[in-house]
Amino acid sequence: MKNIDYIDNFEEWQRSFRFFRRIKVRFCETDMFGHLNNTVPFVYFEEVRTEFLKALGFMDQWTNEQSNEIPVVADLKCDFLKQVFFNDELYMYAKVHKIGRSSIDLHYMAKKDNKEIVLVGRGALVQINKHTGKGVPWNDEMRQKLQHSQSVSFV
Amino acid sequence: MKNIDYIDNFEEWQRSFRFFRRIKVRFCETDMFGHLNNTVPFVYFEEVRTEFLKALGFMDQWTNEQSNEIPVVADLKCDFLKQVFFNDELYMYAKVHKIGRSSIDLHYMAKKDNKEIVLVGRGALVQINKHTGKGVPWNDEMRQKLQHSQSVSFV
Amino acid sequence: MKNIDYIDNFEEWQRSFRFFRRIKVRFCETDMFGHLNNTVPFVYFEEVRTEFLKALGFMDQWTNEQSNEIPVVADLKCDFLKQVFFNDELYMYAKVHKIGRSSIDLHYMAKKDNKEIVLVGRGALVQINKHTGKGVPWNDEMRQKLQHSQSVSFV
Amino acid sequence: MKNIDYIDNFEEWQRSFRFFRRIKVRFCETDMFGHLNNTVPFVYFEEVRTEFLKALGFMDQWTNEQSNEIPVVADLKCDFLKQVFFNDELYMYAKVHKIGRSSIDLHYMAKKDNKEIVLVGRGALVQINKHTGKGVPWNDEMRQKLQHSQSVSFV
Repeated sequence: MKNIDYIDNFEEWQRSFRFFRRIKVRFCETDMFGHLNNTVPFVYFEEVRTEFLKALGFMDQWTNEQSNEIPVVADLKCDFLKQVFFNDELYMYAKVHKIGRSSIDLHYMAKKDNKEIVLVGRGALVQINKHTGKGVPWNDEMRQKLQHSQSVSFV
Repeated sequence: MKNIDYIDNFEEWQRSFRFFRRIKVRFCETDMFGHLNNTVPFVYFEEVRTEFLKALGFMDQWTNEQSNEIPVVADLKCDFLKQVFFNDELYMYAKVHKIGRSSIDLHYMAKKDNKEIVLVGRGALVQINKHTGKGVPWNDEMRQKLQHSQSVSFV
Repeated sequence: MKNIDYIDNFEEWQRSFRFFRRIKVRFCETDMFGHLNNTVPFVYFEEVRTEFLKALGFMDQWTNEQSNEIPVVADLKCDFLKQVFFNDELYMYAKVHKIGRSSIDLHYMAKKDNKEIVLVGRGALVQINKHTGKGVPWNDEMRQKLQHSQSVSFV
Repeated sequence: MKNIDYIDNFEEWQRSFRFFRRIKVRFCETDMFGHLNNTVPFVYFEEVRTEFLKALGFMDQWTNEQSNEIPVVADLKCDFLKQVFFNDELYMYAKVHKIGRSSIDLHYMAKKDNKEIVLVGRGALVQINKHTGKGVPWNDEMRQKLQHSQSVSFV
């Protein structure tokens, strides 16, 4: 396995995921080189991330028009380990790696047919005030839910 | 030329366009069959349509948070006349074909290198109240601008 | 229901679909007007169409590098009946409406939560020789499968 | 400026770019939070990268059906410094940061209206044999062109 700076122990790392969604590669997501285009894994990262944040109850809050907070992506990285092809079914995993004051560091892993790892990634998400653009700290309830997600399997 | 029900006289039709934008096919817009994916022309239609509506001053109004009106697409059609490939440069044309009470019928044409017609299309756009979803009639100023666009070249 | 020229009897029409896939609206498929962007239903049409053609065994054939035939979209139309939003789950239906010599006319219908119809559409698909670009007639086996799909439910 | 591990001296770094393309944010690239969706900068990175590789003459070679080599993205990272909005015009820069045996490390920078830096990024690209998937070393001509691009402005 290629050396990836955000993964210490690969075996341990992959066992620590508790949440995934199945995603099938769409035809329009391929390119003329015959494989999944390099821009698409970030769509899959968003897909599993929003499902994860929905499961925590965060998305409902943020997509409510009355809400002053929205999440923004601060950075995002993908390591492409294997080529992915049309029709491949990916098990796309996400987990909270670290909880900051108003941010989280999320890790991502995609396994083809839930076996071979084909993509890994990470990225920070920050909760900001949508008017000022400033970070808004997690409240206690949110923080507990984020911590809880690290130890318990949930769908 | 294939029979297309929204075009009477093809020669006249293509001469009646006054507005275009140049669009280069992106690599990620191709698919594994080696050509432009069928879902992408609708992105190009939107691109030239928003540029056109920007030039009329409509987009500024609709994207203003205070505005109660937004435009919605009521229908959209594309006829694929020739395959389009990576790196092709399209001259993407748009025009107002018909002006309704709160809607317009827009026509689209894409010429490769401003020569061969490769895509044509049409679609209705309706101005609605974003809270009620009901159609909002064009005011006099908007109607005049729409009419004006049919007779005058503008960038 | 708005008048749509490819649908005669709406009740009958919607009962005649035998194939669907569930598709959840992705966050990145929304736009700043807060709803599903108008370019995305064509992605959903492609999604259900390729799944349908996969179920018939056609996709495997066409995506085989040795194959001389590929399918191309000749035209595509969407009628937007209701706004669609983030998180909506669509039941996206497809069926063969008419079988031509080397083409088919496909119809599409999306129901939110399998209840309210939000999108309908149609479009022709042509089997061509990828080197010459000419239409390639369906062989007997393909024609039978296409006919069969019109009368029998299959997943 | 936030600490970014692939940038030593920010002033120097931004002056070292010699190649850019102007990219206007498309309406469909926004999301319901009103800004550019986080998945889109990777499309812009690909856009400037392919234009850059086209200018070097590499794309023509790789997209030739006879070619045994294709480029693949090994990893890709984006740091989102400022929110980007509909209608923003970005000056999207790319440069070769480091030349490996069969790979290059590319850096990316997007300036709004060619002034404020809103996005930066990096990623490795590898030339592989499309049949074996193995890395194919740059030949002398390619290596020279890559080196040349680091010192000379070109459009």
